[in-house]
Amino acid sequence: MNRSFILKGNIFHTPEPDRLAVRENAHVVCEDGVCRGVFDIIPERYGVLPVIDCGDKMILPGMVDLHIHAPQFAYRGTGMDYELIEWLDNIAFPEEALYADADYALRAYTQFADRMRASATTRAAIFGTVHAASTLILMDRMENSGLVSYVGKVNMDRDAPPALIEDPAEGVGADTRWFIEESERRGYRHTKPIITPRFVPSCTDALMEALGEIRAEYDLPVQSHLSENPIEIELVRQLVPRAAFYGDAYDRFGLFGRGSNTVMAHCVYSAPPEVERMKRNGVWVAHCPSSNMNIASGVAPVRRYMDEGLRIGLGTDVAGGTSESMFRAVTDAIQVSKLYWRYIDLDAKPLTFPEALYLATKGGGSFFGKVGSFEEGYAFDALVLDDSAESTPRPLPVRSRLERAFYLGLDRDGLVMKFVDGERVF
Amino acid sequence: MNRSFILKGNIFHTPEPDRLAVRENAHVVCEDGVCRGVFDIIPERYGVLPVIDCGDKMILPGMVDLHIHAPQFAYRGTGMDYELIEWLDNIAFPEEALYADADYALRAYTQFADRMRASATTRAAIFGTVHAASTLILMDRMENSGLVSYVGKVNMDRDAPPALIEDPAEGVGADTRWFIEESERRGYRHTKPIITPRFVPSCTDALMEALGEIRAEYDLPVQSHLSENPIEIELVRQLVPRAAFYGDAYDRFGLFGRGSNTVMAHCVYSAPPEVERMKRNGVWVAHCPSSNMNIASGVAPVRRYMDEGLRIGLGTDVAGGTSESMFRAVTDAIQVSKLYWRYIDLDAKPLTFPEALYLATKGGGSFFGKVGSFEEGYAFDALVLDDSAESTPRPLPVRSRLERAFYLGLDRDGLVMKFVDGERVF
Repeated sequence: MNRSFILKGNIFHTPEPDRLAVRENAHVVCEDGVCRGVFDIIPERYGVLPVIDCGDKMILPGMVDLHIHAPQFAYRGTGMDYELIEWLDNIAFPEEALYADADYALRAYTQFADRMRASATTRAAIFGTVHAASTLILMDRMENSGLVSYVGKVNMDRDAPPALIEDPAEGVGADTRWFIEESERRGYRHTKPIITPRFVPSCTDALMEALGEIRAEYDLPVQSHLSENPIEIELVRQLVPRAAFYGDAYDRFGLFGRGSNTVMAHCVYSAPPEVERMKRNGVWVAHCPSSNMNIASGVAPVRRYMDEGLRIGLGTDVAGGTSESMFRAVTDAIQVSKLYWRYIDLDAKPLTFPEALYLATKGGGSFFGKVGSFEEGYAFDALVLDDSAESTPRPLPVRSRLERAFYLGLDRDGLVMKFVDGERVF
Repeated sequence: MNRSFILKGNIFHTPEPDRLAVRENAHVVCEDGVCRGVFDIIPERYGVLPVIDCGDKMILPGMVDLHIHAPQFAYRGTGMDYELIEWLDNIAFPEEALYADADYALRAYTQFADRMRASATTRAAIFGTVHAASTLILMDRMENSGLVSYVGKVNMDRDAPPALIEDPAEGVGADTRWFIEESERRGYRHTKPIITPRFVPSCTDALMEALGEIRAEYDLPVQSHLSENPIEIELVRQLVPRAAFYGDAYDRFGLFGRGSNTVMAHCVYSAPPEVERMKRNGVWVAHCPSSNMNIASGVAPVRRYMDEGLRIGLGTDVAGGTSESMFRAVTDAIQVSKLYWRYIDLDAKPLTFPEALYLATKGGGSFFGKVGSFEEGYAFDALVLDDSAESTPRPLPVRSRLERAFYLGLDRDGLVMKFVDGERVF
């Protein structure tokens, strides 16, 4: 596959959170899968590269989804009248139990991966279920999707239906080791395992300890949930009384940054000591605004996190979130930040569109390395978006067209090309 | 056109706010455009009517949009980083000024009406601009769309750009009289005028008084904005010091219920005296959750209004809201009610899906008469929805399929038939 070419069109990216760079009728250069920058006129040294002329279409970096549950995709948009714990018991856990069946997993994960392929997402951090074999099926499907992803076999050994509790007969964490080694044997190019304790209430100390050891041994990243809901936080306080705060219950076992890439979903209620620890340890926040509304958790103080210099990206959190659309996640993040400003903290200025776009691209992209921008040296993840089906009585400025594409969810029908690491997905 | 027939399929409606009636593989009877009820077996007296078999598809009442601005449709989803007053000055007013040009109006309103036709909305209360001639073009387009609608020539004579200020040269309210009489001369079947002061800050007492007289003379309904934003409310207090509260500034001129159907958009900050007056006067609330987030207004206390027995429906409020989708308005209403519960009033139980669906159908429908339900005697407004493109690894219960259709916005691609007053729109 030719990973050296030039895209020509209206080019957008967010090198900094508060700066949307807009270049009309410009060129973005991809060389061996790496971005060489945006140019009005093609530099002589790239003169030999083929040019894909996208006309008046829009070209932007691929979206990075830092938190999504693949086995929940099948029932997204249902059961939304429940709160978190009820929702887990009535909807999420019964469905996840079905993934003990590899046939079911193959059918469901194929549907999931097909939609991820068609989506605006180019990179994702994905939860599977406790089932190692089924989660390998998910990895197969994701490898085929063209996305780059981290995929986690979920770990739970308490406070869940028996069918979802790990069997410690073969040793605590044994199936996670098998999952990791098997996934490495398969030699995936785009798909890597990630250590995935579901969340503290689901994991005994013994399991957490084993996961910490496995993480260190295989040098893997970590994903989990953190401080999503007041009831959950109180539960953690009771379950792990020695922990200074929720995040400390991960940190005690080496599962909270400090050299390993760690992403924690939600962080709606992280108090200052937890925020301080996340900052010190370099933990990423996956802000999931849609899910936090649907499960009535609240609104994460993203402005405060940004001001404190935390690493933040966005997550769709299907199926707490109902849609895999990262365009929707961008506008949801803006909308809830406005309510946060209005009702909770008048000093917390609402997110702007450029800021939310930054979170969805370069912010979350940093979890994967130099990802999410068209600056020189970044991985070439790109979308080409055609908004011409949305007619207007007069032409809109190109900056407004981009914003509109997000608010109207044009990722659903308007994506005409997608590239990951310079490889064309469609 | 044959307005007597039977639809067969999975039938849903909400006869009461807390009850979603679900009848699988049932029949809903339309006789001369009027609903005769839902039946498992077709009653003998309707045995001669043709049956349209919708198979496994879903059949539900049409959606009622109680608040939408037609001239703002062209730039929906843009300029969303502004707050209300900035947004009016920078986005809304400059665009509305273009509707002085009838060619522009025809082009823009044709696009608007085409989308309304394709949408899930069967009835709507619509704002035009101050321009009487252009607003008649909007009425023409709406009459062709198949929807039933009220369309208002907007009234403003202060605090707006000169191009949008009414010229009192021919007498205050003269162009509104002409608009009403001309629209009546055209003999529209589905499209009626509605008295539309933009909002108190835009209308002098002289104009309000004239509108009150015109309203009484022609016996017309009224639409406007109310208590959307703290700054706006303070402005009204200064502009109309004699008014006991914002709504009283309409009521003093006979523009606030009391016999005339009146719908007020937003009501985010209506204090108890205003709520009491709305209740007493029978004023409808158009709850516009998306707009209230986008313009950072807040969240209306819908649960309290419902508990107090106010009349409430939903509005998309394009382009404060970004989408004309009433499916989206339903899920937005649920989502913001969860944040309201979480942060503002733990006694205000979040809206359930049936409740929000009720608001979007029978709640708002009552503004148009017996509308928004499949009960006997209601106008036959119906949608047939095909969700088969959203595959799942196992069949979902039909109740979950309906909820999912709303959360995934399947009104965009999944509507296969639409009926208004028993007439098939598509």
